[in-house]
Amino acid sequence: MEEVVEGQSGGRRARGGGGAARRAERTAVKQEFTRFITRNIPNFDVLTEEALQIIEHNAETVLEEIGVNFVENPAALQRWRDVGADVQGERVRIPRGLARKLCATAPAQFTQHARNPERNVEIGGKNLVLAPVYGPPFVRTASGGRRYATIADFRNFVKLGQMSKWVHHSGGTVCEPTDVAVNKRHLDMLHAHMTLSDKPYMGSVTERSRCVDSVEMSKILFGADFVDQNTVMTSLVNINSPLTFDPIMMDALEVYAAANQACIISPFIVGGAMAPVSVAGTLTQVLAEVLAGVAYSQMIRPGAPVIFGAFVTSIDMNSGAPTFGTPEAAQITLGAGQLARRLGLPYRSAGAFCGSKLPDAQAAYETANSLNIGLLSGVNFMLHACGWLEGGLVSSYEKYVMDADQLGILHRLAAGIDMSENGQGMDAIREVGPGGHYLGCAHTQANFKSAFWKTDLLDYKPFETWEEEGARDTVALAARRVEKMLGDYQPPALDPAVGEALAEYVAKKKAAEPDAFM
Amino acid sequence: MEEVVEGQSGGRRARGGGGAARRAERTAVKQEFTRFITRNIPNFDVLTEEALQIIEHNAETVLEEIGVNFVENPAALQRWRDVGADVQGERVRIPRGLARKLCATAPAQFTQHARNPERNVEIGGKNLVLAPVYGPPFVRTASGGRRYATIADFRNFVKLGQMSKWVHHSGGTVCEPTDVAVNKRHLDMLHAHMTLSDKPYMGSVTERSRCVDSVEMSKILFGADFVDQNTVMTSLVNINSPLTFDPIMMDALEVYAAANQACIISPFIVGGAMAPVSVAGTLTQVLAEVLAGVAYSQMIRPGAPVIFGAFVTSIDMNSGAPTFGTPEAAQITLGAGQLARRLGLPYRSAGAFCGSKLPDAQAAYETANSLNIGLLSGVNFMLHACGWLEGGLVSSYEKYVMDADQLGILHRLAAGIDMSENGQGMDAIREVGPGGHYLGCAHTQANFKSAFWKTDLLDYKPFETWEEEGARDTVALAARRVEKMLGDYQPPALDPAVGEALAEYVAKKKAAEPDAFM
Repeated sequence: MEEVVEGQSGGRRARGGGGAARRAERTAVKQEFTRFITRNIPNFDVLTEEALQIIEHNAETVLEEIGVNFVENPAALQRWRDVGADVQGERVRIPRGLARKLCATAPAQFTQHARNPERNVEIGGKNLVLAPVYGPPFVRTASGGRRYATIADFRNFVKLGQMSKWVHHSGGTVCEPTDVAVNKRHLDMLHAHMTLSDKPYMGSVTERSRCVDSVEMSKILFGADFVDQNTVMTSLVNINSPLTFDPIMMDALEVYAAANQACIISPFIVGGAMAPVSVAGTLTQVLAEVLAGVAYSQMIRPGAPVIFGAFVTSIDMNSGAPTFGTPEAAQITLGAGQLARRLGLPYRSAGAFCGSKLPDAQAAYETANSLNIGLLSGVNFMLHACGWLEGGLVSSYEKYVMDADQLGILHRLAAGIDMSENGQGMDAIREVGPGGHYLGCAHTQANFKSAFWKTDLLDYKPFETWEEEGARDTVALAARRVEKMLGDYQPPALDPAVGEALAEYVAKKKAAEPDAFM
Repeated sequence: MEEVVEGQSGGRRARGGGGAARRAERTAVKQEFTRFITRNIPNFDVLTEEALQIIEHNAETVLEEIGVNFVENPAALQRWRDVGADVQGERVRIPRGLARKLCATAPAQFTQHARNPERNVEIGGKNLVLAPVYGPPFVRTASGGRRYATIADFRNFVKLGQMSKWVHHSGGTVCEPTDVAVNKRHLDMLHAHMTLSDKPYMGSVTERSRCVDSVEMSKILFGADFVDQNTVMTSLVNINSPLTFDPIMMDALEVYAAANQACIISPFIVGGAMAPVSVAGTLTQVLAEVLAGVAYSQMIRPGAPVIFGAFVTSIDMNSGAPTFGTPEAAQITLGAGQLARRLGLPYRSAGAFCGSKLPDAQAAYETANSLNIGLLSGVNFMLHACGWLEGGLVSSYEKYVMDADQLGILHRLAAGIDMSENGQGMDAIREVGPGGHYLGCAHTQANFKSAFWKTDLLDYKPFETWEEEGARDTVALAARRVEKMLGDYQPPALDPAVGEALAEYVAKKKAAEPDAFM
């Protein structure tokens, strides 16, 4: 069973404007949180041993015969030469077996620390850590429609993450705060994660100096010694598929690996565009890319924590649009999980993926397909686990809470089936007998509170009641929940000196250079 | 890969009213159909060997110590006495191992014949046959809302089933035609399945004489000799859980088993009400009930085809409403699949289950959760695979086509990953190389048409196009598709003499007794 702890993560602040009833309601608010998932169920292995060996063999062939490009990065090319790769121009051909051998120093599991130690997460092994959507330039709300995201939206999404009991991680770019200069928005984003949430977070990857800022701000939050000795960030390093490592992303990997901070090394693939149109071909390329990327991380610092990433969608051959929740994406997610486990690395994939423009049935079918497969694929770190809409262009307020509610289902499924004497329930069957009912029996009375996963959102009311209450659909219910969660939100306690130091760092860095919007 | 065959199942009829363009469009209509699924992937086993043994042991304890009731059925009680059960009143206590031994004569797999032999289905083994929703007294349409179902609705749903390429079975009570007398509606329902569809169908179970009518009408359709020697119906026999076999359902089982027609023997369980509030307890009761029911079927006629059924939902402890797409239902569905396979029986469970009143995101999350788990549970016959809404109270036109589209995903997932040389795609990776793209490469050109599952419904258009076209949600897209499918529908060819004989049978039976609405 998952552990849901009702706790209070910060001091309650008096706020103006509410009446007595409203204050009383707010005082009763409890901020629940749940430990990351530790699976007590098997993974679903779709590839046979023979298929796995073929893909692994082919991936080594890709690395050896075709190679990968490390672009505008002479130091990287020298590192590859030093370990025995064949480097011609920017092309790095890696002898069979070398990359896998270099990967061996990467840990199979690591702890990412949060400023609240109760929120620390273990990434790898049988664990599954859920983090919100990453990257959308737009937001959508039920009342306001679709518009560019702002830093105010960003802070709202961080607050929703802090308030969501099944979400273990505050994430990174929960939306792009487009009203803040490109060269400064990472400061505001990090500041929001560090002050509005006490869950673990991700660092900036969009420029070397921003990675350094991420490390420096983390040192203010955790203490410099602590950051030197512990992993406090997991950041997203995308591979420019096919087979290309671009300089900005390698900068990020280099800064973070050197600082012993974790990176997700993640091919970003729309199948049929950035990888072969076939599942096995895509898996081959994913494996080759991850082998090269992880190997490179271990050249920077052996033992640096990294995650085998796989962001995969298929493509709609009519429109060229990426598609989500498809069977091909599911097969790749499942297969890549097997490859990651054989490589002994934590695995990142899946998410609340959908292509729909609205948080409607299409969005939910696509999302549920991906979430379910993510659980069964052995994913250890699920980015985009809530809030994703429209192919990742939009962070949806309503879908955030809709998805976050569904994440509770993954916790329950992962817990497996209780086979204790109480779980077997033989006393109940004996007590009730043929033709009876279980509602009042002793076993039901003793267990009903925790027996079933409970939604915080969905409607189970009788038709007539539901109709009288306005015949609300899921989006309407979610809009109400968003409003309540943001209203109930209270910031977690933070040492005022740390708060001041963070604010000072942000102000100083912002003042040091002019705004840039490119 | 699944086989999709574009075919024409009947003669095209000229219809009045359309212009030349409309006629031309109609002439171009192709009615696609797809063979039932044969899994090329493993099942997902959530229970350990030890857990399975505990549940099997406990189920035998239930049968031996608690027993089951066969209500108002002296002949059944005598049959149980004859095989060595301990019968006291209506309570039948079955010695440990006896029921399982009696089940051994039931076939592990059987063919259900359709009047079009291309639509025959194999039930059992690695196969999965998908059938539509069963039983709702209401229908819902996007334009008209929720209302009582009529025989016109019934015929429409049969037509949608005939037109749906991923739906293998015409089903049974796709909605309750409440405008037809209770004692006659089975005649109209059977007539619709037999004439408007050429897919396999289900028989009536609501009264002994209606089962006999189902057999008699099937003899008209297939020929009496054929029906004597082959299974042409699969019908739904619910167990009145807990542990009770009511006389009407046993009538149906007796008629069909004697005629070598198939029955799903299916505990109908809302967990916490009709079974223990725990998963393992529910699985124990399900197994005990199915063991008793299948054993009884084999006393009627050894070798009669039967299916291990499990209809399971959990309950919302606040409202008492059944809930769908929950983790507990998933665990039961997975576990019961393992129990069915160990018993060597075909397995029926899962479906497009949801509690939502609307075909909205809630409905789709719940449905997708259940469909995915159904595939991985090894389900062989999935009733309610499309169209189910509001806990089974409503057949939804729009949700029918939404779900039916999702069923294509199950086909693809079940096909597994193509590991042929073409599937491996090494030529593509070689051709494209680092930094290229795959859209135009030879491998993509050769494979793109069949590489990915294609939706017939969902929207993948760019935001701007989608907005210009009216920003339609899934329900709006589905409403348009329903209209098109019903407009395009053409009845499959039927020998006119058979058609006349069926109509005559229905007319004669209807004239023979007054309408009854109870």
